[in-house]
Amino acid sequence: MAVYKAPLRDMQFVLNEVFNAEARWASMPATRDVTPDLADAILGEAAKLAENVLFPLNRSGDEEGCKWVLDANQQGVVTTPKGFREAFRQLAEGGWTALSGSPEFGGQGMPKMLTVMFDEMLYGANSSFALYPMLSNGCTLCIASHASEEQKQVYLPPIYEGRWCGTMCLTEAHAGTDLGIIRSKAVPNGDGSYAVSGTKIFITGGEHDLVDNIIHLVLAKLPDAPPGPKGISLFIVPKFLVNADGSLGARNPVSCGSIEHKMGIKGSATAVLNFDGAKGWLIGEPGNGLAYMFTMMNYERLSIGIQGLGLGEVAYQSAAAYAKDRLQSRAPTGAVAKEKMADPIIVHPDVRRMLLTARAYSEAGRAFACFVGEQLDMAKYHEDDATRADADALVQLLTPVAKAFFSDKGFESCVLGQQVFGGHGYIREWGMEQLVRDARIAQIYEGTNGIQALDLAGRKVARNGGAYARVYFAQMRSALDAIGAVPAVAGEMAAARKAIQLLEETTDWLIAEAKGDANAIGAASVDYLELFGLVTYGWLWARMLAIAAPKAGADAFYTAKLATGRFYFQRLLPKADALAAQVRAGSVSLMTLDSTLF
Amino acid sequence: MAVYKAPLRDMQFVLNEVFNAEARWASMPATRDVTPDLADAILGEAAKLAENVLFPLNRSGDEEGCKWVLDANQQGVVTTPKGFREAFRQLAEGGWTALSGSPEFGGQGMPKMLTVMFDEMLYGANSSFALYPMLSNGCTLCIASHASEEQKQVYLPPIYEGRWCGTMCLTEAHAGTDLGIIRSKAVPNGDGSYAVSGTKIFITGGEHDLVDNIIHLVLAKLPDAPPGPKGISLFIVPKFLVNADGSLGARNPVSCGSIEHKMGIKGSATAVLNFDGAKGWLIGEPGNGLAYMFTMMNYERLSIGIQGLGLGEVAYQSAAAYAKDRLQSRAPTGAVAKEKMADPIIVHPDVRRMLLTARAYSEAGRAFACFVGEQLDMAKYHEDDATRADADALVQLLTPVAKAFFSDKGFESCVLGQQVFGGHGYIREWGMEQLVRDARIAQIYEGTNGIQALDLAGRKVARNGGAYARVYFAQMRSALDAIGAVPAVAGEMAAARKAIQLLEETTDWLIAEAKGDANAIGAASVDYLELFGLVTYGWLWARMLAIAAPKAGADAFYTAKLATGRFYFQRLLPKADALAAQVRAGSVSLMTLDSTLF
Repeated sequence: MAVYKAPLRDMQFVLNEVFNAEARWASMPATRDVTPDLADAILGEAAKLAENVLFPLNRSGDEEGCKWVLDANQQGVVTTPKGFREAFRQLAEGGWTALSGSPEFGGQGMPKMLTVMFDEMLYGANSSFALYPMLSNGCTLCIASHASEEQKQVYLPPIYEGRWCGTMCLTEAHAGTDLGIIRSKAVPNGDGSYAVSGTKIFITGGEHDLVDNIIHLVLAKLPDAPPGPKGISLFIVPKFLVNADGSLGARNPVSCGSIEHKMGIKGSATAVLNFDGAKGWLIGEPGNGLAYMFTMMNYERLSIGIQGLGLGEVAYQSAAAYAKDRLQSRAPTGAVAKEKMADPIIVHPDVRRMLLTARAYSEAGRAFACFVGEQLDMAKYHEDDATRADADALVQLLTPVAKAFFSDKGFESCVLGQQVFGGHGYIREWGMEQLVRDARIAQIYEGTNGIQALDLAGRKVARNGGAYARVYFAQMRSALDAIGAVPAVAGEMAAARKAIQLLEETTDWLIAEAKGDANAIGAASVDYLELFGLVTYGWLWARMLAIAAPKAGADAFYTAKLATGRFYFQRLLPKADALAAQVRAGSVSLMTLDSTLF
Repeated sequence: MAVYKAPLRDMQFVLNEVFNAEARWASMPATRDVTPDLADAILGEAAKLAENVLFPLNRSGDEEGCKWVLDANQQGVVTTPKGFREAFRQLAEGGWTALSGSPEFGGQGMPKMLTVMFDEMLYGANSSFALYPMLSNGCTLCIASHASEEQKQVYLPPIYEGRWCGTMCLTEAHAGTDLGIIRSKAVPNGDGSYAVSGTKIFITGGEHDLVDNIIHLVLAKLPDAPPGPKGISLFIVPKFLVNADGSLGARNPVSCGSIEHKMGIKGSATAVLNFDGAKGWLIGEPGNGLAYMFTMMNYERLSIGIQGLGLGEVAYQSAAAYAKDRLQSRAPTGAVAKEKMADPIIVHPDVRRMLLTARAYSEAGRAFACFVGEQLDMAKYHEDDATRADADALVQLLTPVAKAFFSDKGFESCVLGQQVFGGHGYIREWGMEQLVRDARIAQIYEGTNGIQALDLAGRKVARNGGAYARVYFAQMRSALDAIGAVPAVAGEMAAARKAIQLLEETTDWLIAEAKGDANAIGAASVDYLELFGLVTYGWLWARMLAIAAPKAGADAFYTAKLATGRFYFQRLLPKADALAAQVRAGSVSLMTLDSTLF
C-alpha cells in the first residue's frame, strides 16, 4: 500500500545545513522573526496534518471523485469527496491557509524557502485536496500584488482565513497556451463594475462545497481592446457578491456547466464556468491582465512543480516499504533471509536502481525547491538592489526548470515506484497507480512542460543573450569554490563542475544557433531543460555530499545521503552528455518533413 | 479524439521490402502457400475488423469496464462491456481466432511474421478486447506443443473456432516472479485426472461471458513434488467438463472470487480464481510445468510487447491528427495559416519532436516485430538444422528485448501523444489518457520489464558467454554489408555500425564483469536492455533508410520514411552512449546502502 511520512529530517537538512536558512532569514527585515525553531514547529505540525488528515483521504477521494449535479434552482453544484470539507476546515482553523499570506491582511508572511516544504507535504499527502488551497494562494498573490487597497481589504482576509477560496480563469476551449485569442468579454456597467461574459474551461476549484464563496480571477477583453495579448485585462468575479460589511450578497451569474472526467486528481473539481454578464471588477490597468498573471506565475509554477516532487517522494517511500516487505526469489549473491521462503526484493540491484533513482531525484529536488524559494524571498525582500536583481534573474531562469523538471522526474518516480510493486502496482487498491495518474497532470497544466522549456530556452536564456544563465553559472561555481576540497567526494565535485561546463557550452551554442535559426529554440528546448535540470541536481548533490561525507558512517542519515548522491553521479548524471548531443543536433531533422506527411 | 487506421502501407513495406517475406515463406514447406497477395488480403480484412468493430468499442469498454456479480447459484460471473460479445463472435466467424493455429486441428497456420501485424492491429484498436483471443492463443500454443494427441483433439478445435477461450493460471498472491513457491496442489483422483486446489490471481480472461467454456492451464504441485521450480506441473482445468462427444458437461469447481479494479485495460477481466478440487488433467510429464510454460513464453512475451507497439501507433496517429488540426500560437518562423486566428501546432519543432519520437519507435518496432516473427517461424519450420539453431538463438535473445523495449517505448509514445493534446490529453473523453493507462500494464505483466532485462543480460547473454549475442551481431553486420554503399544515408549507415560496435563492447564488458560480481547483471540489466533496443532500432532504421533514400522525393511514403529515420539517428540514438556509461558504472553504487536505510 502507499505510505507517507513527511521527510522532516531531510527538510531540516536542506534548510539548516545546505542553505543556512537561519542566516538568510536574519538578513532580511521581512523574515527576521523566522527562526529554525519556529520553522521546525511549523513543519512538525504540518506533517501531522498531512499524514493524519490529508493522506487518509487520498485513496477514498480518488475513488469517490467530485460530483456535479443541478440543484433545485437549476444551479450546477459540485460535491467534493467525503472528508474534504472537514479537512479544509482543519486547514483553515490551523491557520495554514494564511501561511504565506501578506501580514498586512492577516497572512503569516512565512518565507517561500519554508513554505515550499509545506507545499510538498500537501501535494504528497493529497494532490487533489492540495489544489484548493494552492489555487487560492495564487489568487491572493495576484490580488496582493496588483489589486487596489480596497479590493485587498475585501478579498484577502476571508481567503487567508479559509472562509473563501480563489481560482484563476484563463483557458477557453480554443485558447490554452495561446491566451491572446480568448473571447471572454467585459463590458463596463457604468458604476465602476463590469459585466463579464464567456466560457472558461479547466478551472481548478471552479466550483465546490468547501467554503462559502469563491473568488474568480478572470481574463477577459474590454470592448475596445486591441487584438492579441495586449487586449487582455484581469477581473475579480466573486461567486457571491460581497456586501459592504463583508457579508455575502446575491449570487453572481457565473455558473458551473459541468466538471471534467479526468485521468487523475479526481478529488479536484475541474470546472467549466459560464460567465453570463457576471459582475466583475477590474484589477489594476486595462490591458495588463497577462502581465499580472505572470507576476504570480513564478509562485504557481514552482508550486505545481512541487506537486511532482511531493508525489515522487510518496512513490519512493511506498516502494521502499514494499521492497523491504515483499518476499520473492533469492538475492544474486545467495539467500539473505534463509529462514523465509524467499528474500525481500530489496536485495535485487534493479529494485535498488528504481528506488535510488526516485530518491536521488526527490532529495535533490527538495534542495532545488528550497533554493528557488530562497531566490523568490530575496527577490521580494532583500534590501540590496543588486542582490535582489540577481535573485530575480534566478527566479525567472529557474522557475520553468523547477516546474518541468520536478514534474517530469516526479512522474518518472511514480512510474518507477509502481513498477517496484509489480502486478500490484496496477491494482487500484494498492494506491500506486493513482500516484502515476495524479502526477501526470503536473506535466501538463500551468503551461505544459514543453511550454516551460520554450520559456527557459527562449525568453529566459536566448532573449537576454544568456545574462540570467551567467548569473546562475557564476553562483553555482562560487558555491562549489566556497566548499573547498572534500577528498571523499572529490570525484563527484569534479563531475559537478564538468557538468556545469557542459551546460554552459551548450547554452552558448544554443544562443548562437538561435540567431540564425528561428526553430533552434523549439528544437532544443525540452532536451535543454532536462540537461539544465540534471546539471542543477548534480550541483546540489555535490553540495550535499560535501556536507554528508565527513559525517557518514557514524550517522545513518549522512550515510544514506552519501550513498544516494554517489548513485546520482554514477547512474543519472551520465544522461547529460546524450542530452547535449541531442540539443546540438539542431532543428533540421525536425522541420524537414512536410506537415501533411505526418 | 483518438483515431486509428491500421498502417497497412507500412506493414507491406516491412514485409515485402525490408524482409522479403515472399522468399522467406517460399523457402519453408510449412509456409509455402503464403503469398504476398494472401498476406495483403488478410491484413486488409484485419484492418476493417480492427478499425470498424474493435476500435469503436475501445472507449466505451474502458468507461463501462467488466462487472462481477454473484448469480442465482452463488457463482461469480463476469459481464464484459457492451459489444464485446458480438465483436468476439465476429472475430470467430471471420476465422481470426484460428489464424495462427495448428492446421492439424483446424488452425490456419499463418506465419508469425505475418500475424505480428494482426496482433498489432488488435492491440492498437482495443487492448482490453485483444487480450481474450491473445491469451487463448497462448493456451492453444502450449497445448499444441506439449499436450497428448487426445487432449489436442478435445481442446484445440473449439478454441480455434472461437467457441471457447483459454487462460494461463500462474500467479498466486505470494508468488509472482517467483513461481517456485506456489502452493496450488494437484492430487491424483485415481482415474487419470487430478483434483486441483488453490487460489490464482491476476488471471487475464479468467472468467467472462464471451464464450461457452474457458480452458485454464494451471501450474500446481503434485503431492510428492520437490520444492522449488522443479516441483511444478501443468494441468488443463476446464470451466465446464467436456463430454466424450465434445459437448459441455458439469461445471468444474473453479470459481471466480472477484475481479481486480485496475488502472487500465478495464474491459479485460482480471480474475481471482479459486480451484476447489477442480478436475484437471496433467499435461506432459510431472515437474515440467514451468518448462512447458516457457516454450510458449516467447510467443506470449512478443505478443505483450506488441501491445505497446500497437498503442504507441494509435497515440502517434491521434496526436498527429490533433497537431494538424489544433490552432494555437504562431510558427517561430512567422504565421503559416495567416487566414486563421493561429497556426496548427504541428508548426512547432517541439510538437514535431514528440510526434517523430513516437513514429520512429513505432516504425522501427514494426520492423523488429516482423524480424522476431521471422526468427520464430524459422526456428519452428526451417529445414536446415544450423539455420534453425541460429534462429532459435535469436528468438531466445530477442524476445525479452521485444517485450520490454516495445512496451517501454509504447508507454513513452502514449505519454508523448497525450502531451501533444495538452489539457485535453488529461480528459477521459478525448481518449489519450486511456492509451497511457492501457499501455502501462504491458511493462508489468508477463514478467515485468525488469525481469525481461535480467533474462536478457543473465540467461540470454552472460550465461552462454555471449554466444547468442554473437550470432546476432554477425547477422546485423552481414545485413548491412549486403546493402553496400548508399551515399544519401552513408552517415546513418556508419552510425548504425558504430552503435553495434558499442553494444558488442558493452556486452563483452558485462560478460567479464559478471564473472567477478554476482550483482553485475542486475545492476546493468535495464540500461543494457534499453541500449540493446536502441542499437537494434538503429540497425533496422539503417536498413529501412537504405531502401527509402533512393525513392524519396518522388514518393511521399519514402520521403517520410527517410525523414523519420534521420530523426532517429539525430535525436534518439545518441542516448546509447549514456546508457553504455551507466552500464559500466557497475553495481557498487546500488549495493552500498544497507537495506534498512531505504
